[in-house]
Amino acid sequence: MSEQRTEISALGEFGLIEHLTKNIELQNASSVLGVGDDAAVIDTFGKQAVVTTDLLIEGVHFDLAYTPLKHLGYKSVVVNLSDIYAMNAVPAQITMSLGISNRFSVEALDEFYEGVYTACNKFGVDLVGGDTTSSQKGFIISVTAIGEVAPDKYVKRSTAQKGDLLCVSGDLGAAYIGLLFLEREKKIFIESPGVQPDLEGESYVIGRLLKPEARKDIIEFFAAQNILPTSMIDISDGLSSEILHIGHQSNLGCVLYEEKIPVAEETRKAAFKFEIDPTACALSGGEDYELLFTISQSDYDRLQMSEQISVIGYMTEPEQGFYLVTKSGNKHPITAQGWNHMKKN
Amino acid sequence: MSEQRTEISALGEFGLIEHLTKNIELQNASSVLGVGDDAAVIDTFGKQAVVTTDLLIEGVHFDLAYTPLKHLGYKSVVVNLSDIYAMNAVPAQITMSLGISNRFSVEALDEFYEGVYTACNKFGVDLVGGDTTSSQKGFIISVTAIGEVAPDKYVKRSTAQKGDLLCVSGDLGAAYIGLLFLEREKKIFIESPGVQPDLEGESYVIGRLLKPEARKDIIEFFAAQNILPTSMIDISDGLSSEILHIGHQSNLGCVLYEEKIPVAEETRKAAFKFEIDPTACALSGGEDYELLFTISQSDYDRLQMSEQISVIGYMTEPEQGFYLVTKSGNKHPITAQGWNHMKKN
Repeated sequence: MSEQRTEISALGEFGLIEHLTKNIELQNASSVLGVGDDAAVIDTFGKQAVVTTDLLIEGVHFDLAYTPLKHLGYKSVVVNLSDIYAMNAVPAQITMSLGISNRFSVEALDEFYEGVYTACNKFGVDLVGGDTTSSQKGFIISVTAIGEVAPDKYVKRSTAQKGDLLCVSGDLGAAYIGLLFLEREKKIFIESPGVQPDLEGESYVIGRLLKPEARKDIIEFFAAQNILPTSMIDISDGLSSEILHIGHQSNLGCVLYEEKIPVAEETRKAAFKFEIDPTACALSGGEDYELLFTISQSDYDRLQMSEQISVIGYMTEPEQGFYLVTKSGNKHPITAQGWNHMKKN
Repeated sequence: MSEQRTEISALGEFGLIEHLTKNIELQNASSVLGVGDDAAVIDTFGKQAVVTTDLLIEGVHFDLAYTPLKHLGYKSVVVNLSDIYAMNAVPAQITMSLGISNRFSVEALDEFYEGVYTACNKFGVDLVGGDTTSSQKGFIISVTAIGEVAPDKYVKRSTAQKGDLLCVSGDLGAAYIGLLFLEREKKIFIESPGVQPDLEGESYVIGRLLKPEARKDIIEFFAAQNILPTSMIDISDGLSSEILHIGHQSNLGCVLYEEKIPVAEETRKAAFKFEIDPTACALSGGEDYELLFTISQSDYDRLQMSEQISVIGYMTEPEQGFYLVTKSGNKHPITAQGWNHMKKN
């Protein structure tokens, strides 16, 4: 937090919007008109527009006790861009609406927007509109992201085919372990405020939770290799839940191999400390923002060009259901438990 | 409220989304892909896309003590469509994100969505996406509306010219008087729960607050008459505030005639009961969702074809400032007080 504190009321609603948006330079030719009018104007020049939106609420989706505002701003953008990439599209614009309680200062909002603009610059998107209002309680963030895609190049969840390979980018389960660490340290801090947080060596898993990345590189890899996935979804709720979405919407079943699920060494070590199964974190943890997708077997060779992609199973007839083959060779049905379920335990 | 109460937890997040969206039939060819994937896909077929977003928070923007959920759903859509029309564009899609506390039942949400779908059908827009999440306190509504406009037909706030006529649709000030009535009756109800609300004869002003309309007809009139306004904005904060937006952004001044400001007879009578000036309500009340726009004097004759439009003043050199000429012939500077200011009094 900066030392200075400027009350938001000192600027007023329009002054605040001017303050937060005055340095915007539009990066995309498609951003015809940005912040400052009743609406933004976008020209996709013959491409199709892809639109997604997310609502993030303090106390439900984030805890300001251990979430730096700059990271929160960054993440608020990234989770929406991840949905755009999951359509095989390229994000170009966002709108950002905020509900702000009066405990926020202008300096605090500046920190948040520093994260927003960092994400915008990194992923080449323009902030073109939004709404800033007061909130009686809690910080509320609503982001809409708009991307573009050539007609018929977008990838749905419902178009996987029997025999397709099931693939995932990056590694899974880290964000959930990061959350466990931060929740533990918060509890200790509340009980014994003098104790310093012990997060030594956990920067990987904590970073995966607080500052996730959207997989722009994977979409660029598909374009470069001329691979069109047969279906795709981003992993926000956990691998199990997303596999079931693709499977149900495509009317297929699936076999998933535990030994193929990518889990980082840092995640395994951290899971060991909490005495939980890293595979369970990957299956049900969520918030990894990796891409889960299916490809035709004929694309397998081209897929090998990326070290960032793991083949973890294959799609089957719907009658065969959804199965995890464990490292010991047992078959377990895949069920959607997800983040909320685990949080309750 | 219906008699039955189904807990949202009985459906779960995905079940709830399925329940609320299962009857959607996409109306626009531009809605290529709707609810049910990571993002929606929109093809504007060579037109430009127009995007706007609004965040509505219980206790800040609406009071469920006197706001029927169906009306709230309708209004949540309409206030966004109003912004699209204010760009001289035609709305085609919306996304709707909700934060819902557990005091809401599935039946209550059904009422809200009945209003949403009524507005969608009336204005020909498709609900193509959104996010449904829990809220610790209060009902949170975030809507993004997307419209389309032929390139170079969109109308900004910043392009009014000196000598242009300043015009407004419909009539002003009613929504604010409607709010005064409802706040008064709420106060009486809290103090004396047995007293029945006395809203007799005030259905016009209350209706203007609770169920505003977006001025689709005015945009259609412009198209039919081949009128392109030189600037336009919708009236959400009050006439004064919106005139200043157009004037400042166009680097002009303005003369406004009090006697030309359209105020409904119902509004005058209701203002009389509260002993407030109906002109003040028009200038600073807000929430009327009428269109304020400027046209070239050469379009004046064609403008006469509509009884829904009033010429209320004209744009001047910026050095002349912003003036209201009262019915008694006095000149008063126009200042932005707006809704929030009036609420405090």
